[in-house]
Amino acid sequence: MQTFHIEPVKNPSLQAALLQKINQKTKPLGALGRLEVLAVQLGLIQQTEHPALQQQTMLVFAGDHGIAAEGVSPYPQAVTAQMVLNFLNGGAAINVFARQHDFQLHIVDSGVNAVFQPHPMLIDAKLGMGTMSFLHHPAMTQAECEQAIMRGAEIARDTITQGCNVLALGEMGIGNTSSASCLMSVLCGLPLHQCVGRGTGLNDKGLQHKLSVLTTALQTHHVNHKDPLQVLAVFGGFEVAMMVGALLAAAEARTTLLIDGFIATSALLVAAKLYPAVVDYCVFAHCSDESGHGVMLAHLNAQPLLHLSLRLGEGTGAVLAYPLLQSAVAFLNEMASFESAGVSGQLQ
Amino acid sequence: MQTFHIEPVKNPSLQAALLQKINQKTKPLGALGRLEVLAVQLGLIQQTEHPALQQQTMLVFAGDHGIAAEGVSPYPQAVTAQMVLNFLNGGAAINVFARQHDFQLHIVDSGVNAVFQPHPMLIDAKLGMGTMSFLHHPAMTQAECEQAIMRGAEIARDTITQGCNVLALGEMGIGNTSSASCLMSVLCGLPLHQCVGRGTGLNDKGLQHKLSVLTTALQTHHVNHKDPLQVLAVFGGFEVAMMVGALLAAAEARTTLLIDGFIATSALLVAAKLYPAVVDYCVFAHCSDESGHGVMLAHLNAQPLLHLSLRLGEGTGAVLAYPLLQSAVAFLNEMASFESAGVSGQLQ
Repeated sequence: MQTFHIEPVKNPSLQAALLQKINQKTKPLGALGRLEVLAVQLGLIQQTEHPALQQQTMLVFAGDHGIAAEGVSPYPQAVTAQMVLNFLNGGAAINVFARQHDFQLHIVDSGVNAVFQPHPMLIDAKLGMGTMSFLHHPAMTQAECEQAIMRGAEIARDTITQGCNVLALGEMGIGNTSSASCLMSVLCGLPLHQCVGRGTGLNDKGLQHKLSVLTTALQTHHVNHKDPLQVLAVFGGFEVAMMVGALLAAAEARTTLLIDGFIATSALLVAAKLYPAVVDYCVFAHCSDESGHGVMLAHLNAQPLLHLSLRLGEGTGAVLAYPLLQSAVAFLNEMASFESAGVSGQLQ
Repeated sequence: MQTFHIEPVKNPSLQAALLQKINQKTKPLGALGRLEVLAVQLGLIQQTEHPALQQQTMLVFAGDHGIAAEGVSPYPQAVTAQMVLNFLNGGAAINVFARQHDFQLHIVDSGVNAVFQPHPMLIDAKLGMGTMSFLHHPAMTQAECEQAIMRGAEIARDTITQGCNVLALGEMGIGNTSSASCLMSVLCGLPLHQCVGRGTGLNDKGLQHKLSVLTTALQTHHVNHKDPLQVLAVFGGFEVAMMVGALLAAAEARTTLLIDGFIATSALLVAAKLYPAVVDYCVFAHCSDESGHGVMLAHLNAQPLLHLSLRLGEGTGAVLAYPLLQSAVAFLNEMASFESAGVSGQLQ
């Protein structure tokens, strides 16, 4: 597979300069809490004391999953394609929030089981009409998996070349919480029951069935947890693999990454096993209500900005957190200092 | 004191209609979590299935406190006036965030120990050059307290008349966490040590001193916890009392209230003891890092939207939460339904 060159953001002198700048602002020390931590991170990512956010972009990767045929979702597979059309028509939640926060929104057909007419918002990266059911076969071949990563990387690079320096990734794919649960179980070394949740809304019986199907699937494949690419090929989706490539290419280009929910974080798990420094570029937007996401985030030492009990995917959590990034940059660049404002400092 | 007529927002048929509207959107049931709860609340407040947010406004009430002379803050009292000038010059955190989210921002001089030149952003409601030290005397007289409530109500009504239907309240006042801690202790019936925190950044020794001063103060005054107006007069600040009036008048006018941190919530405690229905109009924005705020919110059964470890006041937490209100309204009004988008519903 192609290699990526991802530098850790660590830079003690710049970090000290950013902290000093923050501590001179007209506020008690540390009083802006998480926004101060975020401001430092954004400065380190962009290697400047004056970070700026440009052309925030959401890429929603859509793909179908063979595993959907095993009854692991309460929705039929056709919903993946129907929701892609809903995205293109502007009617989904992610459209509403992207408009609100002025995101460029593109939908990537990574491998949906339908043929779409060309559309200005649609990026055609179709690798097939959906993956194989990993209950019986690897979801994709190793070659397909590497192709997906490369294609995802290419799409991220194109986006960045056009001026984006904040990239958010979302997804749509009936069955993809099953993929993400298996990736999590193998890559985090956790029992499956800690990784499997209700997805789009399984009842108790459905949840039991999903757990049973995935348990069988994990037993069927003898994957090497130290080979993330193999794990990804066996359990992943086309959209998940493309997100892995997009994350790596964006981090290589020192782009801030806004990490959404359970599926997007599972792609990051894979990416971080390959290149741990990718995490330095990630702002964790939201802890989903999907059971398992909290544990997955803890595995990455991630502290998400929002806890709103969302469990929708599409990148919605990422876009909703974006104004907090803007606030972090704005206070760092715009607030007066004690000296410039003539405000007295602490007595003690 | 003047009376307020505050209707509870309860309306079962409208609530059912809002829920039905939400459940027809192209998303799994409940998948927008807290935003769905918020959308219902905003609909109930505005008595419509199509809520809209208009001319969001932040009123920052500033006042000085006699108790500041007792060494309960690490900052000198002069900082209140200095920060008012910083607000008027646009350099404080609240200015930055208000610009970001297009808030009208007004600073109310409720009783700062300084004389200000007229300024378009400044509302002159000065009731004195600061309160008395409640270590020795009631902070204000009962007449001053009622006057402050009426003046706060008048300011809120003026703001609403000009087109605002989302009102956020912030504050500035060296020493005002001491006021809020005493209000909390008496009105919630909690021991003072659960109500007293580091404010703008006291060290351990300073915190101990503050606790000792406030313990003496509580022992000095024999207030009746069932008489919120008396409690407010004894321990409150001019800015806190004005916020009480603003909250009550805004709820009377069915205006959505964005509740900020420790001080703003202490004003709501008083208001809610007088008129419990005021809480129906409140969206709780942020749980502050000021020790005691979490307990105060729990006393009000409040679940704040954000947990960002802020402890700055000025209304910053309220303004940062505002885009989530916009998102709630936007998804309710703009998202497609399963039927209109041709998306299949759940199988089970």
